Amino acid sequence: MNKLYVVGMGPGAYEEMTVRAVKTLEQCQVIVGYTLYVDLVREHFPGKEFLTTPMRQERERCRLALETARSGRTAAMICSGDAGVYGMSGVLLELGQEYPQVEIEIVPGVTAAVSGAACLGAPLMHDFAVVSLSDLLTPWEVIERRLRAAAEADFVICLYNPSSRKRADYLKRACDILLDFREANNLCGLVRNIGREGTECRICTLAKLREMKTDMFTTVFIGNSETREVGGKLATPRGYRL
Amino acid sequence: MNKLYVVGMGPGAYEEMTVRAVKTLEQCQVIVGYTLYVDLVREHFPGKEFLTTPMRQERERCRLALETARSGRTAAMICSGDAGVYGMSGVLLELGQEYPQVEIEIVPGVTAAVSGAACLGAPLMHDFAVVSLSDLLTPWEVIERRLRAAAEADFVICLYNPSSRKRADYLKRACDILLDFREANNLCGLVRNIGREGTECRICTLAKLREMKTDMFTTVFIGNSETREVGGKLATPRGYRL
Repeated sequence: MNKLYVVGMGPGAYEEMTVRAVKTLEQCQVIVGYTLYVDLVREHFPGKEFLTTPMRQERERCRLALETARSGRTAAMICSGDAGVYGMSGVLLELGQEYPQVEIEIVPGVTAAVSGAACLGAPLMHDFAVVSLSDLLTPWEVIERRLRAAAEADFVICLYNPSSRKRADYLKRACDILLDFREANNLCGLVRNIGREGTECRICTLAKLREMKTDMFTTVFIGNSETREVGGKLATPRGYRL
Repeated sequence: MNKLYVVGMGPGAYEEMTVRAVKTLEQCQVIVGYTLYVDLVREHFPGKEFLTTPMRQERERCRLALETARSGRTAAMICSGDAGVYGMSGVLLELGQEYPQVEIEIVPGVTAAVSGAACLGAPLMHDFAVVSLSDLLTPWEVIERRLRAAAEADFVICLYNPSSRKRADYLKRACDILLDFREANNLCGLVRNIGREGTECRICTLAKLREMKTDMFTTVFIGNSETREVGGKLATPRGYRL
């Protein structure tokens, strides 16, 4: 059986990969990924063949990885964060049905909700919802319904893909929805370039968040009604009966 | 400044720790944790002093770690999964206010939602909500409200602490709530002993999940309306327009 590993590399720095992810990449002949992420790991895995495809060409990238494995070379597809959270593992499992000779193994990694939370303090700690603001594959009405539901039920909320050039005002629109249910001074946090050079962490109110500019390397956190600031860090209590 | 590290060790196996977590523990003199988790890492860190407290004594464990760091020894508090998801990092930040000499650094790890999802296939992939069924610190009404909100907005749902000896029927009660909004054949998954010896993965329907027995080492996944079974694995599509 030919092996294809789908490896979550964590936020970006080599040290944030799991030992299993490192060992998996060391034993592979070919590493496939989006150009930016391949460049982050290249120096740590000398002697490997690297295959890259540009952003957006995810299905092509998956086929490239599957074809490589079918040809008899042990391959890994790398994803930033975890391969199963807005990553490639689902698409690979689907397309993998056409490659019965290839066995797919998923190696989990630290997703941005978790690594970003660690930068900010401890904003998750209690029940939380993860929502992507990208409407590339999801109708905005579905995103809006999820934001309402999560806001109303007092979940801590973590937003992936808060905006991009084409979706410059999406974070503002999301904040307007959240402000229907939450106080303007609800505590929030932003983390940019998690686990890479130039990590930026910032704590602000929901009203202030509405005015912030973010990009595709930013992860946004909206605390629940109990989230507070403790020594310059965000902390959500473990419950409501403390 | 005396350092105290809060380290998420991932699901349990040494290999599932990040490189940063391993390096952090290697440079510490003292490792503090719940007996069960300390036993999982002990053999990999010879020469360290290990301090343990039983389950439930979390605040005492935090104080033990803070006192150790204050006394001048570099210490790490280990948590299973990630320290910030139903973990100790929030409590440590709070109690840490009383120990201004101690600088706390949080080292993120792979939480059960992510590691369990990798065992099952790719059930997360899209927006998801994480809910703990433990009502030790949270009124059941809050838990119920969150389950309703997450079910209605078609989130993939991941349940932590689905039951224990004292809460034997909580998973059944949760399923009854979810069944108000979801089909009986909504796909679900269970993972027991993630990343440890004897990992068990199982896929079933929501109706079947209602009848299942789980324990505190089980993590439960409820797919969204689009989640399907692909080659024996759970896979949620990346969107609604595929």
